Amino acid sequence: MDKKISEKVINRLTLYHYILRDYIANGEIYISSKQIATLLKIDDSQVRKDLNLLNNSGKSRVGYIVKELKKSIEMTLGYSKTKHTCIIGAGNLGMALAKYDNFTSYGLNVVALFDNDINKIGNKINEKEILDIKNLTDFVKTNEIDIAILTVPSKFAQETADLIVNSGIKYIWNFTSRVLKVPDDVQVWNENLMGNFLQFTYNI
Amino acid sequence: MDKKISEKVINRLTLYHYILRDYIANGEIYISSKQIATLLKIDDSQVRKDLNLLNNSGKSRVGYIVKELKKSIEMTLGYSKTKHTCIIGAGNLGMALAKYDNFTSYGLNVVALFDNDINKIGNKINEKEILDIKNLTDFVKTNEIDIAILTVPSKFAQETADLIVNSGIKYIWNFTSRVLKVPDDVQVWNENLMGNFLQFTYNI
Repeated sequence: MDKKISEKVINRLTLYHYILRDYIANGEIYISSKQIATLLKIDDSQVRKDLNLLNNSGKSRVGYIVKELKKSIEMTLGYSKTKHTCIIGAGNLGMALAKYDNFTSYGLNVVALFDNDINKIGNKINEKEILDIKNLTDFVKTNEIDIAILTVPSKFAQETADLIVNSGIKYIWNFTSRVLKVPDDVQVWNENLMGNFLQFTYNI
Repeated sequence: MDKKISEKVINRLTLYHYILRDYIANGEIYISSKQIATLLKIDDSQVRKDLNLLNNSGKSRVGYIVKELKKSIEMTLGYSKTKHTCIIGAGNLGMALAKYDNFTSYGLNVVALFDNDINKIGNKINEKEILDIKNLTDFVKTNEIDIAILTVPSKFAQETADLIVNSGIKYIWNFTSRVLKVPDDVQVWNENLMGNFLQFTYNI
């Protein structure tokens, strides 16, 4: 598959994957592009076009074989390549993400959380320990950490980003509502909830 | 402005807005497209193109006037039109969203939370009460609710969506990892965290 798969296709493939997991849970063997399209209220032709991008999509005379299609999406989106992450900020959002049951099945391994609150340090969330933010750099030296998930209050976003950068982590998934200043070799993905919301509500 | 403003432009305008708020907090009067572009690591020409879409962007000889540009983005994105929402599911994610300091300033008013846990019902989060999910329909009859934010555990997603639909709410912002079955007159926006993550990490 071409490496230049578009963001919208990736997004839709993930939603198809959600549907396939439900189908498997319900013991279904086959699924049609029409069934997927109906659930997502999109065009059947769009679904077929997306699935045609996959290698070995599991297409048969009576529909796509659910398990094969699911595996094919996983291969294409690279779920099999595990990425290791720390959650920086053990507030409600950080805890919600630490508990998020899907991360592991999509190849994202939450290794630990970090916080500066002594009442939280040492506690465990979903079997992941909350560590002292002071020890982040040392931790990153001895553990493979690809991505930092930044969930601190927005007013502490930049100073915490500086700590992350100093620790050597090169990717930040930023859930704060601040634009971070980082060196050129560090990539930030802004999880822009307000932007997403505005796209949704623009026409309400 | 054309109603058909693209999702990507909306997303970028929101990020520009974050930057402008920081500039105002720092007492800055002017900002250049280049300064915005550098912070977001995108092309200067892209920023200028986006800002040209705005009415009265506050452009002057020495740069954009920060306050005018901020107001112009707000007018364009419709922040001034308040939308009323309930958060359905007062777990960590629901609580994080209830505390999210930005919703109000972007025209999203969280009226209440709903849960079925008697230990949570009656508590307040960020001055918003947690109400019994059994009372959702009655609540919607007497309060203007435009949007339901769905943050229950994924296994309860569909049955809770059914309750929301029955209450008469027509828009669901879905944070669960399930694709919801809803009637044609109900719109669902899937906040697909895994899809976003995969877009980010596709090339790591």
